[in-house]
Amino acid sequence: MAHDSAQQGSTIGDEELAFKSAFRRLAAGVSIITARTGEGRPVGFTATSLASLAATPPLATFNMARVASTWPAIEQTDHVLIHILGARNRAVAAQLAADHDKRFEGDHWAPGPMGLPLISDVPAWMLGRIVGRYPVFDNAVIVVQIEDGGLGESDEAMLYHERTFFRPGSPA
Amino acid sequence: MAHDSAQQGSTIGDEELAFKSAFRRLAAGVSIITARTGEGRPVGFTATSLASLAATPPLATFNMARVASTWPAIEQTDHVLIHILGARNRAVAAQLAADHDKRFEGDHWAPGPMGLPLISDVPAWMLGRIVGRYPVFDNAVIVVQIEDGGLGESDEAMLYHERTFFRPGSPA
Repeated sequence: MAHDSAQQGSTIGDEELAFKSAFRRLAAGVSIITARTGEGRPVGFTATSLASLAATPPLATFNMARVASTWPAIEQTDHVLIHILGARNRAVAAQLAADHDKRFEGDHWAPGPMGLPLISDVPAWMLGRIVGRYPVFDNAVIVVQIEDGGLGESDEAMLYHERTFFRPGSPA
Repeated sequence: MAHDSAQQGSTIGDEELAFKSAFRRLAAGVSIITARTGEGRPVGFTATSLASLAATPPLATFNMARVASTWPAIEQTDHVLIHILGARNRAVAAQLAADHDKRFEGDHWAPGPMGLPLISDVPAWMLGRIVGRYPVFDNAVIVVQIEDGGLGESDEAMLYHERTFFRPGSPA
């Protein structure tokens, strides 16, 4: 077969633009990661990077910037709660992605396992023990081993795509 | 606030079941990673773990088992192609997830940048240089720096959720 990248349109020739154009076309599930600072303050953020790594033992990964407000807590804590969001959790997804001083203002959470902030009314959550923190430039890949979890009422999944929250549609 | 995990239903109390129940409720975008073995044979797999790590420099991650057929190539190669799939790519998503001897039988690919296998007719693809391989038990987290990419015709995103391929629906 001859080289035929023309079938895919032209090469972009700019690494940041190639990255942004491609990831804009990737849909992602939406989760919230929470932890406590050394002083016990609740912290957390909305993530679109949560991914399964293995089922046995159960392992997952998420990515973050090491300049993020939540990073000092993630750097020090042993455990996090990971919440899988449903379509009904749109407001809390937005709140946990906005001003970090106001993310835990309200009754959308309560202390859960190990006192970690447990977001209310999510379809599923997991207790994760951090088993790896891999710095990459100003960012980090976090690996967690799942130790327990719980289920809430089921819901349509929540997706993030083209900078908008969506629910799943028809089969592809 | 009092501890009130009852709001979320009971704790599952089994780490593997907690993991599986939660990830079943997480929707994921679908991508295909391709590479060449040392002998030049095309290899690749359908992934639901592709995630953005940073925009500057542009970095992404994906996860895989180190017992996977593609692992020896990923362990040795410097570069991979990462393809973002659309709803029209359902057949190739299934083919690249099935019998590894038959994944490149057919005209659904051609040699692309650096001779790497370029899957035809995808909405977007990226050329990634591997900058990190982090082993975790029998698995690995792979970090790539995006060096270039290209766009095809746009499409609805392809999602994987509840063991089925979906397209995005209405806003959440």
